[in-house]
Amino acid sequence: MRTIALLTDFGNDCYIGIVKGVILSINQVNIVDIIHKITPQNIIEGSFILYNSYRYFPKNTIFLVVVDPTVGSKRNPILIKTKDYYFIGPDNGILSLSAKENGIKKIILLENKKYFLNKISNTFHARDIFAPVAAYVSKGENISNFGKEIKDIEELEFNKPKIEKNNLIGEILYKDSFGNLITNIRKKNLLNFINNKKFIAYINNKKITKIYDYYSQAKENELFFIENSFQLLEISVKNKSAAEYLNIKNRTKKIFIQVLNL
Amino acid sequence: MRTIALLTDFGNDCYIGIVKGVILSINQVNIVDIIHKITPQNIIEGSFILYNSYRYFPKNTIFLVVVDPTVGSKRNPILIKTKDYYFIGPDNGILSLSAKENGIKKIILLENKKYFLNKISNTFHARDIFAPVAAYVSKGENISNFGKEIKDIEELEFNKPKIEKNNLIGEILYKDSFGNLITNIRKKNLLNFINNKKFIAYINNKKITKIYDYYSQAKENELFFIENSFQLLEISVKNKSAAEYLNIKNRTKKIFIQVLNL
Amino acid sequence: MRTIALLTDFGNDCYIGIVKGVILSINQVNIVDIIHKITPQNIIEGSFILYNSYRYFPKNTIFLVVVDPTVGSKRNPILIKTKDYYFIGPDNGILSLSAKENGIKKIILLENKKYFLNKISNTFHARDIFAPVAAYVSKGENISNFGKEIKDIEELEFNKPKIEKNNLIGEILYKDSFGNLITNIRKKNLLNFINNKKFIAYINNKKITKIYDYYSQAKENELFFIENSFQLLEISVKNKSAAEYLNIKNRTKKIFIQVLNL
Repeated sequence: MRTIALLTDFGNDCYIGIVKGVILSINQVNIVDIIHKITPQNIIEGSFILYNSYRYFPKNTIFLVVVDPTVGSKRNPILIKTKDYYFIGPDNGILSLSAKENGIKKIILLENKKYFLNKISNTFHARDIFAPVAAYVSKGENISNFGKEIKDIEELEFNKPKIEKNNLIGEILYKDSFGNLITNIRKKNLLNFINNKKFIAYINNKKITKIYDYYSQAKENELFFIENSFQLLEISVKNKSAAEYLNIKNRTKKIFIQVLNL
Repeated sequence: MRTIALLTDFGNDCYIGIVKGVILSINQVNIVDIIHKITPQNIIEGSFILYNSYRYFPKNTIFLVVVDPTVGSKRNPILIKTKDYYFIGPDNGILSLSAKENGIKKIILLENKKYFLNKISNTFHARDIFAPVAAYVSKGENISNFGKEIKDIEELEFNKPKIEKNNLIGEILYKDSFGNLITNIRKKNLLNFINNKKFIAYINNKKITKIYDYYSQAKENELFFIENSFQLLEISVKNKSAAEYLNIKNRTKKIFIQVLNL
Repeated sequence: MRTIALLTDFGNDCYIGIVKGVILSINQVNIVDIIHKITPQNIIEGSFILYNSYRYFPKNTIFLVVVDPTVGSKRNPILIKTKDYYFIGPDNGILSLSAKENGIKKIILLENKKYFLNKISNTFHARDIFAPVAAYVSKGENISNFGKEIKDIEELEFNKPKIEKNNLIGEILYKDSFGNLITNIRKKNLLNFINNKKFIAYINNKKITKIYDYYSQAKENELFFIENSFQLLEISVKNKSAAEYLNIKNRTKKIFIQVLNL
């Protein structure tokens, strides 16, 4: 049975249940939630989670990805066939990093209304366009039937850490549900930068001086870096929320990390 | 494979997982969550979401609907067979609008303990009565075996907008997870009322003067109406929560919208 | 189709979606969420929910249970085969009460890397170790292939109510999503203690004097005991959150209940 995996900013409301109803009305497929708690309208955050999740899914999984602040306006609904997967969603950049990494084979502009619900709202294309198209893809429909091939999509990149005036400057890309703060700095970036010397990192007037291998290595109430499961440095406090400790509320607040090479 | 769709006020607790365990112990069926974040004990809100969701599900879906403030007391557990669906839950009005719209064929009072768990608690009939009955329905059990046929159920209606002293008076039926406020006013109600003239709507001392076609049409920090995916007017603010903007906390606070026909 | 049931403290983040992707990449199994809102790192709370949920699942269900504050350090990953089930998770006590009640048949230390993902992180063994092992168990792999048999596991017990100076002293084990407060006192403990006389229970300077049979029996704003679906006394307020009423924030705050036998 094919898998359709869902990633949205729909929260815990009924919208995702309705999307599942539409899919199951067309095909008895296996539906999996990746996350629905993307910060509303935050395309960068959605792109970050998709990029760190998609590779763990079975080949031929269909990703239905909807963070869609311009729903109903002129932005295009698209389907991207990559080497191993299908990505369906609005052409606002959210799909680009994952699709490019996996290898884009074909991009289809979704325009054949035969595969949409009869009545298309201006506020809920996940229900009216993306869900039925995903269901028909899972049934093996030839993707050329959904619309014409296009060559370009909106692109989006995450900021990379940079070195300025002998400082390594990074930022927070994501706050997870434990309150861990995932940065855009890789462990090897930091190790190369400090070159076996000590370091001090500053964030919100607090200091970090350690990289630990696992959470329980840390002392109580000590901020530390750890290489997380996305292979990025994450700022943590043992058995606590680093976000609360640092008073960071938004999931993707840009906070600069200044690392001094002592 | 048959679908059982769940709608409850059980939140993110373990209760819904237990319900799924009970169902799967009886039949390997496809279980879908519609929503579990109904405001606790709010039958009207549950009825509203069921009414706007059920029609998107496959024919023969079994809806297990539990918002049940009088669990354990004399309210009846019922099963309603409609033209296309089965609705199971407490007879407190939550099922009535959806069942009536789809066309009621038969109402069964659930009283045959053969189809319940062995021990019936006074606090968790979703686990002890509704889940096993839903599972046996999905296995094709003749519904007459669950209990005697009854003719009447509790009914429930949403308030309709009304015209008083040259004002159109509506109310908020639902606050969604984006903070959009769904009203009981249809776009055509408002267009008929204003008859090509301008209007001002007042809500919590703030004004609305526009109906937009899609979210991104609006200016920053501007309250506006939009026809939502339930074909009701919704009060929104672009890329923000209208509920926070208007300081509305409850999902179903009754707030009157007064529309002046200028 | 086999069932894998998930119980974690991963919240509403993407981590549980990734775990599901890993499982489905290995076997097309039925995945059910029990709960993901365990208070982060709270092993006792996770153990309590598992103990009150597992028996409702089909025989041969595989429970993947991850509340894992010492992930990446020396704590062992284990698989327990019991009379009816399989339990997989960290050996930190979370599995012990449920496995012992159902009857432990064999305990395996998970050490055969053939059944893990290629790269093992120090922060996400649910993805890298527990999910693939659960998937291979669901495919019927001989459990002896996962590692060597061991004889002992970490154990964990809930505090029991006790009688001191003519008082019955209990505590809160869990705050559910309705705000009901589940105690460690059984109804028969209290009935035996008061022996047909009246009682007063004190909690946070408020009094309870009644045990009701169902929620709607209570008066407005009255604290009461009710025997809940786990067969424990629960402190409730009709149509309200007892936790908010008593200003209890944590899910498992230890609050002593002093019952006077009048």
